[in-house]
Amino acid sequence: MTTFDQISGDLAALEIEVPSWAYGNSGTRFKVFGTPGTPRTPEEKIADAATVHRFTGLAPSVALHIPWDRVDDYAALRTYAEDQGIALGTINSNTFQDDDYKLGALTHTDAKIRQKAIDHHFECIEVMDATGSRDLKIWLAEGSNYPGQADMRGRQDRLAESLATIYERLGEDQRMVLEYKFFEPAFYHTDVPDWGTSFAQVSALGERAAVCLDTGHHAPGTNIEFIVMQLLRLGKLGSFDFNSRFYADDDLIVGAADPFQLFRIIVEVVRGGGFKSVAEGGVAFMLDQCHNIEKKIPGQIRSVLNVQEMSARALLLDTDALAKAQEDGDVLLANEIFMDAFYTDVRADLGEWRESRGLAADPMRAYLASGYQEQIETARVGGTQAGWS
Amino acid sequence: MTTFDQISGDLAALEIEVPSWAYGNSGTRFKVFGTPGTPRTPEEKIADAATVHRFTGLAPSVALHIPWDRVDDYAALRTYAEDQGIALGTINSNTFQDDDYKLGALTHTDAKIRQKAIDHHFECIEVMDATGSRDLKIWLAEGSNYPGQADMRGRQDRLAESLATIYERLGEDQRMVLEYKFFEPAFYHTDVPDWGTSFAQVSALGERAAVCLDTGHHAPGTNIEFIVMQLLRLGKLGSFDFNSRFYADDDLIVGAADPFQLFRIIVEVVRGGGFKSVAEGGVAFMLDQCHNIEKKIPGQIRSVLNVQEMSARALLLDTDALAKAQEDGDVLLANEIFMDAFYTDVRADLGEWRESRGLAADPMRAYLASGYQEQIETARVGGTQAGWS
Amino acid sequence: MTTFDQISGDLAALEIEVPSWAYGNSGTRFKVFGTPGTPRTPEEKIADAATVHRFTGLAPSVALHIPWDRVDDYAALRTYAEDQGIALGTINSNTFQDDDYKLGALTHTDAKIRQKAIDHHFECIEVMDATGSRDLKIWLAEGSNYPGQADMRGRQDRLAESLATIYERLGEDQRMVLEYKFFEPAFYHTDVPDWGTSFAQVSALGERAAVCLDTGHHAPGTNIEFIVMQLLRLGKLGSFDFNSRFYADDDLIVGAADPFQLFRIIVEVVRGGGFKSVAEGGVAFMLDQCHNIEKKIPGQIRSVLNVQEMSARALLLDTDALAKAQEDGDVLLANEIFMDAFYTDVRADLGEWRESRGLAADPMRAYLASGYQEQIETARVGGTQAGWS
Amino acid sequence: MTTFDQISGDLAALEIEVPSWAYGNSGTRFKVFGTPGTPRTPEEKIADAATVHRFTGLAPSVALHIPWDRVDDYAALRTYAEDQGIALGTINSNTFQDDDYKLGALTHTDAKIRQKAIDHHFECIEVMDATGSRDLKIWLAEGSNYPGQADMRGRQDRLAESLATIYERLGEDQRMVLEYKFFEPAFYHTDVPDWGTSFAQVSALGERAAVCLDTGHHAPGTNIEFIVMQLLRLGKLGSFDFNSRFYADDDLIVGAADPFQLFRIIVEVVRGGGFKSVAEGGVAFMLDQCHNIEKKIPGQIRSVLNVQEMSARALLLDTDALAKAQEDGDVLLANEIFMDAFYTDVRADLGEWRESRGLAADPMRAYLASGYQEQIETARVGGTQAGWS
Repeated sequence: MTTFDQISGDLAALEIEVPSWAYGNSGTRFKVFGTPGTPRTPEEKIADAATVHRFTGLAPSVALHIPWDRVDDYAALRTYAEDQGIALGTINSNTFQDDDYKLGALTHTDAKIRQKAIDHHFECIEVMDATGSRDLKIWLAEGSNYPGQADMRGRQDRLAESLATIYERLGEDQRMVLEYKFFEPAFYHTDVPDWGTSFAQVSALGERAAVCLDTGHHAPGTNIEFIVMQLLRLGKLGSFDFNSRFYADDDLIVGAADPFQLFRIIVEVVRGGGFKSVAEGGVAFMLDQCHNIEKKIPGQIRSVLNVQEMSARALLLDTDALAKAQEDGDVLLANEIFMDAFYTDVRADLGEWRESRGLAADPMRAYLASGYQEQIETARVGGTQAGWS
Repeated sequence: MTTFDQISGDLAALEIEVPSWAYGNSGTRFKVFGTPGTPRTPEEKIADAATVHRFTGLAPSVALHIPWDRVDDYAALRTYAEDQGIALGTINSNTFQDDDYKLGALTHTDAKIRQKAIDHHFECIEVMDATGSRDLKIWLAEGSNYPGQADMRGRQDRLAESLATIYERLGEDQRMVLEYKFFEPAFYHTDVPDWGTSFAQVSALGERAAVCLDTGHHAPGTNIEFIVMQLLRLGKLGSFDFNSRFYADDDLIVGAADPFQLFRIIVEVVRGGGFKSVAEGGVAFMLDQCHNIEKKIPGQIRSVLNVQEMSARALLLDTDALAKAQEDGDVLLANEIFMDAFYTDVRADLGEWRESRGLAADPMRAYLASGYQEQIETARVGGTQAGWS
Repeated sequence: MTTFDQISGDLAALEIEVPSWAYGNSGTRFKVFGTPGTPRTPEEKIADAATVHRFTGLAPSVALHIPWDRVDDYAALRTYAEDQGIALGTINSNTFQDDDYKLGALTHTDAKIRQKAIDHHFECIEVMDATGSRDLKIWLAEGSNYPGQADMRGRQDRLAESLATIYERLGEDQRMVLEYKFFEPAFYHTDVPDWGTSFAQVSALGERAAVCLDTGHHAPGTNIEFIVMQLLRLGKLGSFDFNSRFYADDDLIVGAADPFQLFRIIVEVVRGGGFKSVAEGGVAFMLDQCHNIEKKIPGQIRSVLNVQEMSARALLLDTDALAKAQEDGDVLLANEIFMDAFYTDVRADLGEWRESRGLAADPMRAYLASGYQEQIETARVGGTQAGWS
Repeated sequence: MTTFDQISGDLAALEIEVPSWAYGNSGTRFKVFGTPGTPRTPEEKIADAATVHRFTGLAPSVALHIPWDRVDDYAALRTYAEDQGIALGTINSNTFQDDDYKLGALTHTDAKIRQKAIDHHFECIEVMDATGSRDLKIWLAEGSNYPGQADMRGRQDRLAESLATIYERLGEDQRMVLEYKFFEPAFYHTDVPDWGTSFAQVSALGERAAVCLDTGHHAPGTNIEFIVMQLLRLGKLGSFDFNSRFYADDDLIVGAADPFQLFRIIVEVVRGGGFKSVAEGGVAFMLDQCHNIEKKIPGQIRSVLNVQEMSARALLLDTDALAKAQEDGDVLLANEIFMDAFYTDVRADLGEWRESRGLAADPMRAYLASGYQEQIETARVGGTQAGWS
């Protein structure tokens, strides 16, 4: 039986990148509800992200989204972040909000529009150079709404070409991660709808291209941990976008819809050797969520805590006993050993562990008592935010 | 074998109500792309709806949405519509865009917010009195995003009470239709998620309450024509919101994703006695779609033509031969008779039928040649629209 | 905060009926793997069921299936069961294995076949009279495979008539529960596919007819606890068939696929007043599962323990604090309170609780150490079983 | 506008391999209904397959399944088939019915069981040598039912090793096609669940390994024609298993559930250059269906006719006009051109085309009038069949 002490070191490796856009308002196509204290500038988003890290010790970097987080001086932004105690992380491109991209961007039939989209990624790489970011993340919101509207094959070939052009521009220490998504915003076909397509595209690019797995981007019933296993096996799991879903891409707090699924996913990350710090070649953990109705910062704190709690349970799995039961073909015992880890209540141990590291035992209560929320709700009045909503 | 001549009379009974909001811009949570010529006022939406009717003869009324189509003088709006050759139809309420409704409207724990939502429906009924509309349509976008967030049971009871209060205010010739939706914008639970809930709620109200079936609001794999059959059998199918879907509530052009499903649905409407004019007690046919990337008026023309073509095929079904094959237990023959109707190409016959009634054989080509589209694209510059996007 | 002591009494009310067929071999259409020790007679199945009860204290009755458990003398079978320490429970009819039922039974177009199916249910009621069973459970495996094959409306009307005839034969203390199932074995339409249909049918029958909710019989993404809530609200939730699923009707061990869902379901049972003994009017809890690859008796023990563990967590929910957070609209706090109960590890407390009642702290280990399994594997050689596989 | 004359040549290239097991009885886990005239030997199955070809001209080969079609003398079986006018086609292995394979075959932890499964494939290759078959088809029914039961990663590695061993044994003109399946008979994880896994596995083997796409083996909402496009683009679409589904792997007659989907699939086959005879390197078209309630031979005739009709519609697509509309970004026109082909009723033209080739205009009527069905129903009495049911 693995003990909490034994997993303490592994737990310390856990780093979860938070997205700058999680601190802004979001919603559905029907309505975006405003929240008091919403950041109006990239700096304010960074300040919020740093606050999450300050209370949890789990979120040492924040992902940016271009153009939403466009500033004149990225070096200054980097310094600002570092002063707050966090790093600037993955740079996310955006090919879904320019009117020119209505029918496609990197896949468009018009070479000029493709070039515009490629140039946008070049800009992102320049930002990366300034921010010191390692990863360029591409989510391709492209596709079509009606059968016959588009030549799917031609689009796939143009996509390969566009990606190759972008890939060549990457620095030696930079990576590209390509996200896939089952559907939305396109409703008939999506150009990168599944892990197979992302895998085939990044494999054609080279070593520094990998797949980004967003947990909400799958068909109903998909065994996501199988994909985690497979991509780790194939050496192509670059990063996670964590969130959770009941139906479609609901973008709820990670672990909220199906905590057992999150457990199984992390078990496979551990199994596949991906549970280590990014610096040591681990899989990058990121959040990509919406907080449509709940408060943003507490929503993010809850999210990183959920990942931490499930990581602890996953690390507690008695893999020796499990391997033996599997070898023996003892179906019920193997399942029981697996569930034992999941059912273990790690919260008290985690509280102590946090205190031993100078953090509050209960980061949520500590945050709520800190006055930060009241302060931003008072101070941040006026202004508008850039975002997908 | 049924001939086209034999179905001509039934075809003439087909009336499809178009929604005012289909002429405005719409999109996804990620982006609303603008379209030249978008109406800026309720009158311009009505003019567009009347244009669809002028070219197709299929859309004699237009549904309004309050508050999007709020005007000072509804009697004048009604006269305007009638001058354009169409009637004002169903009035749609809106309980999803007011900040007060973030956590519920007719179901809210706060009695004041519930009353506000009830009052909004009273306003809708006043509009109905002025416009001569028969139906009040309620789509309840209420629910919760996280397990534990809400007491589903209490909400259901409050919903019943709120609906009863609204129902009592209806005039003797007015009806309430209650729409259900599987998910979105709420992602954990929706207060009216399925036909069973809508049926139970409207049954508790009385004779003039019925279910509105939106074809896009079901779980994957749901046999929608079965629900059509069942609701007709139970005397509670009030109306359809037509559209189509591949994944979630995609809101694509009706018949675009699965034309065979649309055929099966209309076959059940005919089978259940619901295929007749609304005046004679038929099921009300409405569109409820988005045209995110395609042009709005041609999109609506395509939509009503799709319903007409599938209605023709459904009416052509040789029900006597089918009944015999079913009695005989001849599975393959029954299926073949069914498919024969679906596979029949009715387009040439429909063209002639239209011409015999003073319409263009090909309404789409006629519209495109009419100059209307160019005219509105030139004339309608500036202004903003009210809408869900 | 609710303590374990406080829920001890409620926990003691938990009774889970096990199905006789769970002890026999089962499988998929591709293969039924045999298991040593499989019972060859109804008596041997009852002995196994009694064994589950002896080690867990949770399974005081066993459901029978006719004709699989047909015997000459049901009074003797009842005595046999009582001698083993359990009661005979729900009687399940079977309208899916007779060649006459290929195209329907209670819904068939042929009145003679309908009568045969009705007569079969009369036989079941006679069995109930002899066994002292309260419930007649009807799962209607009827439907069609191809569009056009059947007249769904006519079938629904015939079903209503057949059910009414059976219902009239019930004794005053007997009930009928009508199960619904999304699909399988019919693949195009199923005659009772959803809770709405079952509800409409049983409502037309009377007070002693109710819905049976099988947790595996829903479309992907269905919020099952919502249905639990609704049926309890409508007074029509008769019983559960517990099992779990990842994809279709997988019939896995209850709680194995999504333990959090099982928790949410039981929370709604408690909320709706259904968590009490059957004698006091509670909802009947039954298992309906397959053990295709795992051993049967340990599989059943695991199943009833899963229900018990989740019941304990559900009972621990701090409903007062939850209600306050819900009233306050504090989304994150409400969710946290909800999750607190789910994340509580009740296993040690349950072990003590069992010991205080004369049971082994760990029923699984106790069973495995008991020698029963070895004994039946040795003794039960030869013979064949009746079953759906 | 493409005319029927123009597609006549392409239509003549259509060849659909039928499976020997389609002529035997099949069913669900609940019941296999018997059908009069069911073949009792491989020869009788071949005779039935040849009959389908005689009436349709579409089915020049029949796939065999080992061990169900095991005979002493495969050369004699080949001669028998050729005398009947058809060839022996793909050889299907079976790793799901031997008791040793309960927990895996090519993936089993036990090397002896893996070797047994490999040896079975060696036997299949020997059969191929004797029958002159080109393709070895592997459907891997392996997986696990419970989280923790199996080490998915280890299984994937062992699978790769087993497949490599089998692949090496193939002759130079032989191929391996690897089928994937979303779920069933395993319910938690399947070892080859998606096209990505099959693609990754066959890519590691070499040129003569490719993916087999079974149209029924996908998650709800999956865009199958996208996968067709992608695999053709990657040069790895080996063959199709055609059938249709509403829910899971329903195995209904191809085109029965969603004819428009079948159309879209064949359009992509044409687009990707795969619509040509197998001899010229086309994608192999096979059926893999059940006829649970309908008669087998007419069911197969209906199936191949459905593929032929949809192929005709797909070939009629005006690809020049479509390409222009796509280039122009005219969404509605492109969709209209696409639908024009689908809505064209090709049945009369196909009837004439058949007659010009010495076939009956209506193969179904011709078969039913031929007396073959009555003859086999009379002659084939007694005996049992080997099959998955």
